Amino acid sequence: MKTFCFANSRIIESDKAQIHPMDIGLIRGYGIFDFFRTSNYCPLFLNDYLDRFIRSAEKTHLNLTFNKAELSQIIHELVEKNDLKNGGIRMLLSGGVSENHFSPTKSSFFIFCEDLEFPSEGKYEKGVKLLALEHIRSIADIKTTNYTFPVWHSNIWKKEGAEDVLYHMNGEISESSRSNIFIVKEGKISTPSKNILHGITRKRLLELAPDTEVRNITLQEVLDSDEVFMSSTTKKVLPVTQIDNRIIGNGSPGPIVKKLLEGFAEMEQKISV
Amino acid sequence: MKTFCFANSRIIESDKAQIHPMDIGLIRGYGIFDFFRTSNYCPLFLNDYLDRFIRSAEKTHLNLTFNKAELSQIIHELVEKNDLKNGGIRMLLSGGVSENHFSPTKSSFFIFCEDLEFPSEGKYEKGVKLLALEHIRSIADIKTTNYTFPVWHSNIWKKEGAEDVLYHMNGEISESSRSNIFIVKEGKISTPSKNILHGITRKRLLELAPDTEVRNITLQEVLDSDEVFMSSTTKKVLPVTQIDNRIIGNGSPGPIVKKLLEGFAEMEQKISV
Repeated sequence: MKTFCFANSRIIESDKAQIHPMDIGLIRGYGIFDFFRTSNYCPLFLNDYLDRFIRSAEKTHLNLTFNKAELSQIIHELVEKNDLKNGGIRMLLSGGVSENHFSPTKSSFFIFCEDLEFPSEGKYEKGVKLLALEHIRSIADIKTTNYTFPVWHSNIWKKEGAEDVLYHMNGEISESSRSNIFIVKEGKISTPSKNILHGITRKRLLELAPDTEVRNITLQEVLDSDEVFMSSTTKKVLPVTQIDNRIIGNGSPGPIVKKLLEGFAEMEQKISV
Repeated sequence: MKTFCFANSRIIESDKAQIHPMDIGLIRGYGIFDFFRTSNYCPLFLNDYLDRFIRSAEKTHLNLTFNKAELSQIIHELVEKNDLKNGGIRMLLSGGVSENHFSPTKSSFFIFCEDLEFPSEGKYEKGVKLLALEHIRSIADIKTTNYTFPVWHSNIWKKEGAEDVLYHMNGEISESSRSNIFIVKEGKISTPSKNILHGITRKRLLELAPDTEVRNITLQEVLDSDEVFMSSTTKKVLPVTQIDNRIIGNGSPGPIVKKLLEGFAEMEQKISV
């Protein structure tokens, strides 16, 4: 955590931030968040992240008392105060301390700045392994704080040397625990359409590769792909070369993931000059 | 909330309890809890609730630094300090403030005492309505704080005049959002065996009605039942007389739910003298 955070109405020292433990954000896991990063002091794709955060609040009936312009101003102030050249920014809105300990009420709101660690060079060069896992994220299109299942399961995937999981249900895949998934077969890129969080990095990749098919994808198709990769704020575009014990393609990152990673880096470079 | 709570290592004023918002109990919804009640100052079935809480901590790899005897002593002290004749007691263990914002670390631990409201007399006399909802609680046998989906959905069920939901998946039912489910057909009681939290009230009902079949139950069977009821700490044994637009049995609480409700009240009476 960086030194300063925003807590409800003002910037304070991050260490001094607090919330009441009876907040349903804690006792019912009811809250939303969003997470983005600065690149050379520029909050990357801020507009998209703020839109998504505001939409998550609306969809979960949580009361966010700041509008987009106000949020943007607070964030720029925090970036400056924390000297956040390349770091993470986490916005968090909780369900509040509720009389019936269940229904949302007056929310608490926080913004924290964090150090950011990207996957190692080796992971971009060799690709990573995912574990296929039968699960579907409920209300997946809302960025809730509901990660009970993957946090619990991470114990297993770490033992297996996996980077993360690949959710599937009734034969169709959706997403990884905190990333979107893309596949490539014979030069054609596809990504799932349903039961996913609409990632901002995913959105950028769809701009870089507008011919990408957005559709239902079976787990079998993923296993038979030439290339698989994941996209997220912190992973950018990360090649997947193994799922369970199955090697994807020839086992090395393919030409398309490399091209998209370069394209994404160029895009970031242009914005954050 | 009652005046005093236990926070990490000592009894303090409940208003002054606090947790850091970066705790993964909040930012990842990763925590466990348990909830029981006092009946005439007696923490009802305390042994069972403590066993379950300790088991939940183990299963989620959370570090509970108090053993059963210590927990029991703290709880009895809180009951006395709060003069908690008939109230609720909530134990809460969070995932902690984690360096990678994901993996469990040093937990925070709280016990709060609360006022308790039982369902109205009318609900016991007439029975309640449930909405059938396609959902399955992940790691359902662990009492996690993961209630994102039912809290989000409660907006809808309240509009529909329902008390709660009935989860089903692939044609089979599991539980309600915070209660177990029982059905009765031609005098025979059944309750689901899988994808449920093993309720302490459910356990008592299985003692009162040892011939109850614990097995897979289809949604269709529930709709065709003579009686349906739910069990929980705060609902005790509550008749269900409607699911969606379908009336159960003759639309009134049947003889078996009434008998079990009486049996349960007698059991409670004996313990809490």
